[in-house]
Amino acid sequence: VNGLSQNQIDNGTAARGDKGPIDFYFDFISPYGYLASLRIEELAARHGASVRWYPILLGVTVLKVMGLRPVMETPLKRDYVEAEVARYCRRHGMSLNRPLAAAPMNPLPVARMFSWLSRHAPAYAVPYAKQALHRYWQEGLAVDTRDALLAAAAAAGIDESVALRAIESPEAKSHLIQDVDAAVARGVFGSPFFLVGGEPFFGVDKLELIDEWLTCGGW
Amino acid sequence: VNGLSQNQIDNGTAARGDKGPIDFYFDFISPYGYLASLRIEELAARHGASVRWYPILLGVTVLKVMGLRPVMETPLKRDYVEAEVARYCRRHGMSLNRPLAAAPMNPLPVARMFSWLSRHAPAYAVPYAKQALHRYWQEGLAVDTRDALLAAAAAAGIDESVALRAIESPEAKSHLIQDVDAAVARGVFGSPFFLVGGEPFFGVDKLELIDEWLTCGGW
Repeated sequence: VNGLSQNQIDNGTAARGDKGPIDFYFDFISPYGYLASLRIEELAARHGASVRWYPILLGVTVLKVMGLRPVMETPLKRDYVEAEVARYCRRHGMSLNRPLAAAPMNPLPVARMFSWLSRHAPAYAVPYAKQALHRYWQEGLAVDTRDALLAAAAAAGIDESVALRAIESPEAKSHLIQDVDAAVARGVFGSPFFLVGGEPFFGVDKLELIDEWLTCGGW
Repeated sequence: VNGLSQNQIDNGTAARGDKGPIDFYFDFISPYGYLASLRIEELAARHGASVRWYPILLGVTVLKVMGLRPVMETPLKRDYVEAEVARYCRRHGMSLNRPLAAAPMNPLPVARMFSWLSRHAPAYAVPYAKQALHRYWQEGLAVDTRDALLAAAAAAGIDESVALRAIESPEAKSHLIQDVDAAVARGVFGSPFFLVGGEPFFGVDKLELIDEWLTCGGW
């Protein structure tokens, strides 16, 4: 790694054995978050690190906290994002089957269910998130109705009784608020966003840098 | 390159001999633009490509056209940018000698002078930009007074008579407006922004991807 002092490299080496988890934040309606979800676990596994998945809501972070506009309603950025996502997909052999310019689904039901599962049936939370993301981005299905939530849960191997508890739980809403507030408190604002031993990385473009960071122990 | 069909790779190889210029857009007050300016020419030279430097104004693109806020006035993003820029500098053995949270200089005088030089003394435009960027980011000097503009010009080997013509020219203002309008018309919004054979790349994080793009001829 260029530009590192020997001291920094030594510190990095010393830390190398201790690979904490990668905290991965995503919004279900973020294409970049979805693309990152397809790569983060392989990356982490290569470094012997685990991944903790956390939901965020761009409607809270970007719109309310930061006071910005939705990316797909921002002139210039909108067109750029379409070109960039298509290029990223070609580069990594991925595809999206949903037009980015179309109105997104309501992300609240699926994110609430994910927050509920993370607490009450944690082994199923990530499989559920993957199913929901796949349905939304690959099958073009809005995962924001009771039926769609149940179908994603069933595909993730979740008993219908558990899925119904999640969907009907009055707690799920406050679980999600808690998760988003906790993310904001940690400085998280976008999707994907990663915290690697507390070090913040924003954007799917950072996966290669995280790889390098984990390889050399940071700098 | 993963995820590319043989056909795409062949097309890339076929195009490899024809390296057009890299169009590099930057705002003098953008730290990421400055950091990119320190790397883009080495990158381009390795591929036998030239670099064309163009000024933009984030006050026009980000604030007026996109309707967003200045990054350093955006909650969460502000802190992230400070951490990210510091990390980037450590990684690449670079440094900035200007607090990012401080109010930026007025970028208009230096950008106008650069637009004027680009048309009327083109051989001096990039050396002038480099001097101005260095003074601003390394020496902590605001390059927005007549004296500071003249000093940067002198350091770039520009005759004082030419520098005075640039500074006093009533045309410089319209040259810059023209440059920024042309950038926006090409979809450019941020700093740094690169167009490589028409392909848009936003952000200093894209330098590695541009390197890959030029190596394999795109995908």
